[in-house]
Amino acid sequence: MDTPLFWPAHIKGRVLYVLDETLIPQKVVYIKIRTSAQAVRVIKTMKTRAFGQFLVVLNTFLLEIQFATKVTDTQLLRRLQAAAKALNASRPTFPFSEVTGIVIRWAEEAHCSGGDLRSTVQRNILGYMEGIRRQRLDRVARLAGLMRDGDSILTHCNLSGELAMAAALCRREKRKVQFFVTETRPYFQGAKLTCWELKRVGADVTLIADNAVASVMSDALVNKVIVGSDRNCANGDFANKIGTYQMAVCAQEFHIPFYVLTQPSQKVKTGNDIPIEIRDDKELLVFAGKRIVPRAVKGFYPGFDVVPHQYITKAVPIHVK
Amino acid sequence: MDTPLFWPAHIKGRVLYVLDETLIPQKVVYIKIRTSAQAVRVIKTMKTRAFGQFLVVLNTFLLEIQFATKVTDTQLLRRLQAAAKALNASRPTFPFSEVTGIVIRWAEEAHCSGGDLRSTVQRNILGYMEGIRRQRLDRVARLAGLMRDGDSILTHCNLSGELAMAAALCRREKRKVQFFVTETRPYFQGAKLTCWELKRVGADVTLIADNAVASVMSDALVNKVIVGSDRNCANGDFANKIGTYQMAVCAQEFHIPFYVLTQPSQKVKTGNDIPIEIRDDKELLVFAGKRIVPRAVKGFYPGFDVVPHQYITKAVPIHVK
Repeated sequence: MDTPLFWPAHIKGRVLYVLDETLIPQKVVYIKIRTSAQAVRVIKTMKTRAFGQFLVVLNTFLLEIQFATKVTDTQLLRRLQAAAKALNASRPTFPFSEVTGIVIRWAEEAHCSGGDLRSTVQRNILGYMEGIRRQRLDRVARLAGLMRDGDSILTHCNLSGELAMAAALCRREKRKVQFFVTETRPYFQGAKLTCWELKRVGADVTLIADNAVASVMSDALVNKVIVGSDRNCANGDFANKIGTYQMAVCAQEFHIPFYVLTQPSQKVKTGNDIPIEIRDDKELLVFAGKRIVPRAVKGFYPGFDVVPHQYITKAVPIHVK
Repeated sequence: MDTPLFWPAHIKGRVLYVLDETLIPQKVVYIKIRTSAQAVRVIKTMKTRAFGQFLVVLNTFLLEIQFATKVTDTQLLRRLQAAAKALNASRPTFPFSEVTGIVIRWAEEAHCSGGDLRSTVQRNILGYMEGIRRQRLDRVARLAGLMRDGDSILTHCNLSGELAMAAALCRREKRKVQFFVTETRPYFQGAKLTCWELKRVGADVTLIADNAVASVMSDALVNKVIVGSDRNCANGDFANKIGTYQMAVCAQEFHIPFYVLTQPSQKVKTGNDIPIEIRDDKELLVFAGKRIVPRAVKGFYPGFDVVPHQYITKAVPIHVK
């Protein structure tokens, strides 16, 4: 029941393999990463996204440690700090600095206490990732528990494998659940990633345009909404792929429960404090290499929107509460 | 200040020229129509849409009359009735039968009263179209009157020239108005048609994904919404391009005035009585000749949604009230 999107990056030998999510569903290809500069590039160009970014960040530190065989601990610490800085600057909305901050603290503490910086940081990162894997598997089970026989679930963008794995669990337990998936313009993550991975586990999937959200809700074709989150605030507000906000507003209007997978964090107080990435408008204006609008027209492409907590029916956190 | 989309079909000689809206903004090309079967085809394939359909319907009767030089009035009436039937069956949501019904009644009355069927119907159609043209020009002026200096207007799909002409009027009167236009998936009428015609009249235009509606509203980047309608009900409900409903729900949520251009009709009582066209899901699954989702995934593509009248701040009808 595993899906490549659940764990889209892994180290083998001295190479970090990162699933190129932009090529799915046509091909399942892994990009080879050997430097932190390359890691930053796959993040910036959105070859990987969401949970994939988290894995790339952690694995990039492992790469740095592997390659730094002939340097002192002080030099290694500097390299890790430089890598952290580059990763933090890659994209603004996902909380890169929260993840890199953890690793840098481990490294600094090991360095200060005179411990083995390399093995400490390596062991901690591997253990941290394993903990996250277990927590996500646990959340998959809880997510499946939310799905009742006969449910029709609307989702947006891509939940990095968790929704597909929960769908697989439902199938195993003989609960009939169907899915409506929005295209998720302009990157089409819903059409390309979510439809693909739900279909792989044998789920009943229907693609709709992002425009059809109110329509399927008012026609009672869906009875639950499940979305992910890219950044969470202390007050419950969250940022997610652009389009999540209007889905939340419509869910409220049509009295449809709205569930969100979260990574609770106290670092940011409210949604007003989340920096929203404005991406290059070419990603909106050009499709399949062809410009679809007249030259002089500009585009505005915020990558995310912030949903105030009052729209959430239930948050499904990565940590069991 | 005229735009091809304001009057996208006209007869010249014995040929009906219909603007191919699917080729804009790359090319401004007119399709030559000589038969009612060809007319039905340009409607079904959405080469023309919205107001263009209305013009194609009326002009198709003029074509039929032109070609029927050696037939009796009874035979001509049958031909007009057959054309009406074919046009009525072309697409379900736009009220084709309301338009064809008017023409058929003229023909039947002329035939019963022993008048000149040909010249009566021709004259009436030409006069009817001219009346509509004047009423639409009048609405353009009223629409411009709704636009204040500093306004930022969100629109969806395409208003067949009226919005662009109102924008041109504002420019002439030195009122600064800017526009945010949704792509309008899956046909991209916003990206292709509306951006193009607004840019032609020198307006400030920004394209956004259909997903960014709540985002631009919550960030106060827009202060008015103006949309068109494809079908209107006695109670004020209206059908328009899919995505209009969620825009209306969001406008209500963010307290943004929501204006709709209407063609008031008493034929259909409420929105529940409007048949919604479900278009071929290929139009959603395939883009630029390439399938963007895995084979087994199905799509659901309602072409329109129905907005209940309570979401409307103000209807701007074609007839002055």
